[in-house]
Amino acid sequence: MSGPASITDRVVAGDARALARAISLVEDDERSAGEVVGALFRHTGRAYLVGVTGPPGAGKSTLVDRLTGVLRQRSLKVGVLAVDPSSPFTGGAVLGDRLRMQAHASDEDVFIRSLATRGHLGGLSRATSDAALVLDAAGKDVILIETVGVGQGEVDVVRAADAVVVVLVPGTGDEVQALKAGIMEIADVFVVNKGDRDGADRLVSAIETTLSLREYGAAEWRPPILKTVATSGSGVSELWQAIETFRARGPAAQAERRRTRAEGALREAVSHRLMEHLEARALAAGEFAAMVDRVAAREIDPYAAAHDLLKRAGIVD
Amino acid sequence: MSGPASITDRVVAGDARALARAISLVEDDERSAGEVVGALFRHTGRAYLVGVTGPPGAGKSTLVDRLTGVLRQRSLKVGVLAVDPSSPFTGGAVLGDRLRMQAHASDEDVFIRSLATRGHLGGLSRATSDAALVLDAAGKDVILIETVGVGQGEVDVVRAADAVVVVLVPGTGDEVQALKAGIMEIADVFVVNKGDRDGADRLVSAIETTLSLREYGAAEWRPPILKTVATSGSGVSELWQAIETFRARGPAAQAERRRTRAEGALREAVSHRLMEHLEARALAAGEFAAMVDRVAAREIDPYAAAHDLLKRAGIVD
Repeated sequence: MSGPASITDRVVAGDARALARAISLVEDDERSAGEVVGALFRHTGRAYLVGVTGPPGAGKSTLVDRLTGVLRQRSLKVGVLAVDPSSPFTGGAVLGDRLRMQAHASDEDVFIRSLATRGHLGGLSRATSDAALVLDAAGKDVILIETVGVGQGEVDVVRAADAVVVVLVPGTGDEVQALKAGIMEIADVFVVNKGDRDGADRLVSAIETTLSLREYGAAEWRPPILKTVATSGSGVSELWQAIETFRARGPAAQAERRRTRAEGALREAVSHRLMEHLEARALAAGEFAAMVDRVAAREIDPYAAAHDLLKRAGIVD
Repeated sequence: MSGPASITDRVVAGDARALARAISLVEDDERSAGEVVGALFRHTGRAYLVGVTGPPGAGKSTLVDRLTGVLRQRSLKVGVLAVDPSSPFTGGAVLGDRLRMQAHASDEDVFIRSLATRGHLGGLSRATSDAALVLDAAGKDVILIETVGVGQGEVDVVRAADAVVVVLVPGTGDEVQALKAGIMEIADVFVVNKGDRDGADRLVSAIETTLSLREYGAAEWRPPILKTVATSGSGVSELWQAIETFRARGPAAQAERRRTRAEGALREAVSHRLMEHLEARALAAGEFAAMVDRVAAREIDPYAAAHDLLKRAGIVD
């Protein structure tokens, strides 16, 4: 396939159109993702990945825009990936990109892209980490990965970033829910955005209390809690300083995170190749679909059906 | 394994302790899930699965509690699965169960259980549908599956239910985000909860407008929009009527949903068995971990690494 090969050099040179094309390729399917990532992989490993997550309405997009501005003041090249489940109703992702691009439209060292769900979430998580590799190869210094929702899937998407920022917002009555939603324990830095609102200090205290339930060792990182007002930019420089402090713990502290990321990517690739092999080669055409029908008709349970299929494919005894 | 086999009869008889034990087994791992589901599968297929999703703070738990009350008035047996990512900080799931059980503590025809994330979301989605099968086998008429978050993972969890209720709430400024979060297109019924608040009618209009962007065929279901006040119970009977109307479209309309559910369960089981076969049998001990290290060290990209592993295992050429 000449496409991915011929754009590799242009991606590495930082060509924005090639970058957009390469990210579309990794989004499309695992086969073209494999070609793009294979061609670019040796140019990766320099970028720092920052995940930004939190409940809807917390102001994550605005915060990411402001953080991009702070990074540009420091002459850092920035990639932004907004993990944004697409909606056939709203077509939100594409429109959002256009609106957001405007603030940095004249800046070729900023690349913003929404990644939409095209299939299952595993696919989105894979596409996000592959897109981050493409931005890394293109010379971006910092890659901001922002999620729209706050579900477990989003947690999985940002968990493998080098640093994770959890954004909460006072006064919506969502504090407890946010605490419940499993995002507290992945935070490296907490942000209380809309920090000028009533209840901001109470939310800071609530997070403090939650953190105090856990014992932190002397060498262990205890997530700081920062107040920001993203709309005015207040506190955003301090947020970047906190991330830099976290980063300054050195490469050893980051190795575990990067290994997790590598393991996730490898598992996803292996699992996909295995399923592809099974359906396209090891089984007769229609055999998988026929088994789905039998499960749907309750003639056989899914586990017995899986065993049966793998036996027919000659993979298990 | 005698455990799953010996509790099968007791689950089918509706024994609450056996039910709790069986759900713990399907949560534990795929192997014991396979045994439990295999033993119970022929007793399933009667229950109606209702997924309830929406942003944090929308009042989903209260609504599910009230809906349980409405169903009990109609002498229907109810299972509730709250898909609740666990937090080592808060231990929310277990505490939440205890608090929620109190309202129906003396009612043995209600069974409430939180399902927590123990690993990746795929696992939670699988555990949820297996737990629903267990409740189905135990004779529950309606199974309410409630999510805590509103991410893509949660969407995947409820998408395969027979009916999906999307709960939104006025006045938090989250309307647009909820629209963006990909949950609009999975709704069979919309609920505007806290319907006595300012802005409830505006939110109803906003949903109407969004729905009007899509054309519905004459035979196609157009999701109704209901207002509820879950704290007082207002509108909850009407919600159940709307679900019943949706259900009354007949089994043919539901076949597609059930086939999707069957396909998801089969893919998950096949994929898990394939990975297990690869790691436990086809590869030497430590071979997978060694390859993760090589990917983490950037010696090889994940796709080439996956191909290499499958070649060594003799699965691909």
